[in-house]
Amino acid sequence: MFSDLLWLAPVGSIVALGFAFYLAVRIMKLDEGTDRMKEIAAAVREGARAYIKRQYTVVTIYFVFMFLVLLLLARLELVVIFVPFAFISGGFFSGLSGFIGMTVATHSSARTANAARRSLNSGLRVAFSSGAVMGLTVVGLGLLDLSIWYYFLDWYYGSHPLPGGVADKIGAITSTMLCFGMGASSQALFARVGGGIFTKAADVGADLVGKVEAGIPEDDPRNPAVIADNVGDNVGDVAGMGADLYESYVGSIVATGALAAAAGLGVKGVTVPMSMAAVGVLASIIGTFFVRSGEQAEQGALLAALRRGVFVSAGLVAVAAYFLIRASLGMDYIGVYWAVLTGLAAGVIIGLSTEYYTSDRYGPTRTIADASVTGPATVIISGIAVGMMSTGLPVLVVGVAILLSYFLPIKLALAAGVVLSPEQTINTGLYGVAAAAVGMLSTLGITLATDAYGPVADNAGGNAEMSHLEPEVRRRTDALDALGNTTAATGKGFAIGSAALTALALIAAYRDQLSIVAQRMGMILDVDKGLHLMNPKIIAGLFVGGMMPFFFCSLTMRAVGRAAQSIVTEVRRQFREIAGIMTGEGKPDYARCVSIATAGAQKEMIAPSLVAILAPIVVGVAMGAEAVIGLLAGSLVSGFVLAVMMANSGGAWDNAKKFIERGHHGGKGSPAHKAAVVGDTVGDPFKDTSGPSLNILLKLMSMVSIVFAGLVVKYTLLR
Amino acid sequence: MFSDLLWLAPVGSIVALGFAFYLAVRIMKLDEGTDRMKEIAAAVREGARAYIKRQYTVVTIYFVFMFLVLLLLARLELVVIFVPFAFISGGFFSGLSGFIGMTVATHSSARTANAARRSLNSGLRVAFSSGAVMGLTVVGLGLLDLSIWYYFLDWYYGSHPLPGGVADKIGAITSTMLCFGMGASSQALFARVGGGIFTKAADVGADLVGKVEAGIPEDDPRNPAVIADNVGDNVGDVAGMGADLYESYVGSIVATGALAAAAGLGVKGVTVPMSMAAVGVLASIIGTFFVRSGEQAEQGALLAALRRGVFVSAGLVAVAAYFLIRASLGMDYIGVYWAVLTGLAAGVIIGLSTEYYTSDRYGPTRTIADASVTGPATVIISGIAVGMMSTGLPVLVVGVAILLSYFLPIKLALAAGVVLSPEQTINTGLYGVAAAAVGMLSTLGITLATDAYGPVADNAGGNAEMSHLEPEVRRRTDALDALGNTTAATGKGFAIGSAALTALALIAAYRDQLSIVAQRMGMILDVDKGLHLMNPKIIAGLFVGGMMPFFFCSLTMRAVGRAAQSIVTEVRRQFREIAGIMTGEGKPDYARCVSIATAGAQKEMIAPSLVAILAPIVVGVAMGAEAVIGLLAGSLVSGFVLAVMMANSGGAWDNAKKFIERGHHGGKGSPAHKAAVVGDTVGDPFKDTSGPSLNILLKLMSMVSIVFAGLVVKYTLLR
Repeated sequence: MFSDLLWLAPVGSIVALGFAFYLAVRIMKLDEGTDRMKEIAAAVREGARAYIKRQYTVVTIYFVFMFLVLLLLARLELVVIFVPFAFISGGFFSGLSGFIGMTVATHSSARTANAARRSLNSGLRVAFSSGAVMGLTVVGLGLLDLSIWYYFLDWYYGSHPLPGGVADKIGAITSTMLCFGMGASSQALFARVGGGIFTKAADVGADLVGKVEAGIPEDDPRNPAVIADNVGDNVGDVAGMGADLYESYVGSIVATGALAAAAGLGVKGVTVPMSMAAVGVLASIIGTFFVRSGEQAEQGALLAALRRGVFVSAGLVAVAAYFLIRASLGMDYIGVYWAVLTGLAAGVIIGLSTEYYTSDRYGPTRTIADASVTGPATVIISGIAVGMMSTGLPVLVVGVAILLSYFLPIKLALAAGVVLSPEQTINTGLYGVAAAAVGMLSTLGITLATDAYGPVADNAGGNAEMSHLEPEVRRRTDALDALGNTTAATGKGFAIGSAALTALALIAAYRDQLSIVAQRMGMILDVDKGLHLMNPKIIAGLFVGGMMPFFFCSLTMRAVGRAAQSIVTEVRRQFREIAGIMTGEGKPDYARCVSIATAGAQKEMIAPSLVAILAPIVVGVAMGAEAVIGLLAGSLVSGFVLAVMMANSGGAWDNAKKFIERGHHGGKGSPAHKAAVVGDTVGDPFKDTSGPSLNILLKLMSMVSIVFAGLVVKYTLLR
Repeated sequence: MFSDLLWLAPVGSIVALGFAFYLAVRIMKLDEGTDRMKEIAAAVREGARAYIKRQYTVVTIYFVFMFLVLLLLARLELVVIFVPFAFISGGFFSGLSGFIGMTVATHSSARTANAARRSLNSGLRVAFSSGAVMGLTVVGLGLLDLSIWYYFLDWYYGSHPLPGGVADKIGAITSTMLCFGMGASSQALFARVGGGIFTKAADVGADLVGKVEAGIPEDDPRNPAVIADNVGDNVGDVAGMGADLYESYVGSIVATGALAAAAGLGVKGVTVPMSMAAVGVLASIIGTFFVRSGEQAEQGALLAALRRGVFVSAGLVAVAAYFLIRASLGMDYIGVYWAVLTGLAAGVIIGLSTEYYTSDRYGPTRTIADASVTGPATVIISGIAVGMMSTGLPVLVVGVAILLSYFLPIKLALAAGVVLSPEQTINTGLYGVAAAAVGMLSTLGITLATDAYGPVADNAGGNAEMSHLEPEVRRRTDALDALGNTTAATGKGFAIGSAALTALALIAAYRDQLSIVAQRMGMILDVDKGLHLMNPKIIAGLFVGGMMPFFFCSLTMRAVGRAAQSIVTEVRRQFREIAGIMTGEGKPDYARCVSIATAGAQKEMIAPSLVAILAPIVVGVAMGAEAVIGLLAGSLVSGFVLAVMMANSGGAWDNAKKFIERGHHGGKGSPAHKAAVVGDTVGDPFKDTSGPSLNILLKLMSMVSIVFAGLVVKYTLLR
């Protein structure tokens, strides 16, 4: 059982969780500052908890329902009996990591503000530690869940041997583990969509009435929606992002494992991604120690510090993975290492491309700022043009990464004299693609930390503003926040890129599962015969799939609009009905805004979620598995491009506005600024709701397809 | 030679051209009105001519260059020797039809305004006649070109028999004819992109300075860009739309013909689409006689009149096609008839869906108008959401149409006892899909007429305004214009839908051509082996293809921005430097604005055009034919969805603004109106430049792939 390097996975998991616990305890020991600061932090915490409680109630209903459906499928022998439980556990651990990360984040904001009273670097250390807790909890719990299931299933099928021996055993293990990805996906969908709707509804609602109508500044305590706005950062950008990447993380690992058997790599092929992820965890932890700078460091040095941490981790993984893969798979399959490296490199390049298109230090965002002089229409046109242009490089990089990570393992294996059957050849290539996704995500512990630190800094700024701390503190938290915007943009590019590769790996795993499922049901299914690009079911599937992301975005954008409208109404009501609110004598009812945003988000997340879950089932039952693969491929392609565009348009608008606020084109309050605010408002749902939700759409649809493969293979209406 | 129904094609062509000539002569006999009206019409005509002259100069350079490239390819035996000439002829006839249509349109605007002085119906008759000239010229010249080449090649290969007999002959004929599609495509690209940039640069430029800065109304003669704006309607919406649909028309017919041989349908399979198109011409002409109403008819009755014309034509085709296909292909292949009917029906449904999403009589556009109350940001968000939502139905309709038109011919043939080889089965299905495109386009003569009439009415309104005619006339031309907006939106949906089916047929034809080309070069090529959806080249191609439309749109939107900026600068200069321009004493230099817009459009159309032409060649030479097919499929899927979204968002914003102008939400000049104007301005390049240009991108990339198939088959770098 410990003959291979699999033991690294539980060890990595425990180390990650232990280190996260240590960081959390250290954070908790810090002082939260003045009473006022504590009070505000408590309000935000309470709001976030109320939201999560409500969200998990809705999610539980869904999980219970789905559990019963899966039990029924298991009873009909369309899935393995462990699937319903794997599904639940995937959802549970994803939810748990979101909850932990968010709890620590809400405990860290006041502490970050308080630390920022001393220096910029101190503030960074607290906020980054909080982000690291999130990052390490995600990878730690992810690896824990994977390890538990792997060891359990390995033991179970060891004592209850399957007729086909080891091959069947690996198939059964990986099938079940794939299905727990669906639990994580479902949880991620609700977290991303619900959280995304909440955060933008609160943000837009607070801005529209507070800033525009009442003329009070951002984060002003007189604004009844201000706490909801701060809660939103935690539930959307921390818990939502965490769940998203939790899903990519476990998804890429189980997809790689699932492809191992078909590639002829045996058990070692299954354990490699898990042990490599564990190596990534250790590298991430080491990386965190490099995120530090002098007490008087300025913004540039801080960004360099964050970068250093990420690059050190990536470098360590790049070196360690070589030895790990050589030790596990041997030199014959050293091509898998190059595939992993391709994934790591692709992640870095996509991040840099995102930064180029969304940072105000470069041309694209500047052109948007320039366009603001001729009014909001030109701001919108140029922002959309920048977003569309920015899809070029990431797509080319992913395309090249796919080709390299597919062909290198095959070519090097053939060169080493390995004999591969046609089916093994394809699967070796696809295993390489999946390994590239694992490579991209291996340093998630630290990349997620640099990402999740942003909302904490943002909240710290809000806390400083509302607690009337010295302007210098707010200036420092603003610097941290701005830094956070850069890392958030990079993180988003990274989340999208890894989602694309993971979804592709899942599609490949789905193809594989179809044969396994059919075989289990005693049917002969030549899946590949139908996977011809001229098969009209594939074509129709591609078209419908290409449309899905647009339709889904339309639903989420309208949801934000409606939820924001209800906040607007409530804030207006409070301004009207609560006496003395503007003079500071009356206290706004913050909790009510939080509760309205919560109710709105919960209600509005239903429709998009149903679309994502039902589409592959309906298409599959109506037209069969080929159409499902067409659907998945079509939505992957158009969804990836659309997600990049929306994230980058949104980021560029945001930074163009900030660029103007720093005094360009007339500065704050100028017509150019007003025009840029329009761009930023349009960009909000682009970059924080619809765009990121697309990641989940792509992965969840693949997961649902995999889980319901048996149903589709058995009951297709139109053969 | 006349044993089949092919003779219908030249006859249909001559009838169409004869009827178009008759209509043109009848229009020219009408009175152009007052001297002032004549003067303005002459200025617009002169500007349009200057634009076309410049455009055709640039296009000629391109055509000469490409002709030489193709001659070289022919010398290297990578294409048949007739291909360069076919290429030139396709471009020539497309350009000629655009020129004729535009000339008649510019002669009709003053006459329409003058007729509108009598009654709304009279105005409609003139404008619609002008549109009918465009529609019938397009189909007439299209059929003429097709007939000439078919008869010539049939004679040539009859007297110079090929080794493989009839099968080889059909292959050689259809290969050559496919290549003249590339000439038409190239011409269309320049017409759509160049015209689209011109029209929106002039429009936005005129609005930004004239309406917003100087505060003078639309179509005010004091605005130096007003003539350029009117010229734009002609070069963009008449010549551009005509070239676009010319290309779809001939493209769908030749693609169908090319698939006939592989489907085992022989010569008759080649001639069916041509003769069916001829039947559509006759049906269209008959339909035009139903476009009339009482002299005192109001707008609703006029729309009903236009609809009646289209539906009568469609009904006639639906009946005639049955007998034609039964007579040509026999009852065994009657499924092809049902495929044609599917295409006709899909066209109608897509048109209706477009109308639902863009007309202010329905919910979607109303929600945009409602959102205008909370400012420009919500207008943009809701407009994009509406556009994204509107992609659902058209995509589902196209998906269903593909499935039906593929499977019906196969199933009915098998039911009739026809024995089909696997290859014949696929090609019979693909022949059905191509036939559906022909069906959708068969009534192009009249659908294009209802579309091209809009810009004439728009120009008539401009003429009435500038000639200071009675307000009643302007009211009538406005009614005609509004009607034109409805038909234009429907026409755009139709253009996109037909482009999608045509592009799909062309991809199928490309797959076929690869085998033919390889065989001619003595190579054995198993194309289908590579067309597996898990082939990484296909996947990488899909990704890059999915990105292409976004990148292309980004280029065209930025082009509009830059060209508009140069107009803004010029208009500001004239206001500043020409004395008495605002009091009407000084005369603005209209010609200079036209010339600047022309120069801008010509310069800006180069980059997007190069991208469209080079992408398939570069991908093909680098990665081979499979990657090209992936590229084409990816761009088809995401381009189709994006085109629908952009066209419908743009149309809905336009109509939401008009809805507010009619007195809702505060009417003209209210804050809601200002917000809606922002939406409309953003929508301009969406619906009139970038969106429609995507149609061409999809078709042109397929055409280029087909023409350069030999090159790719012979010289692929990465095998």
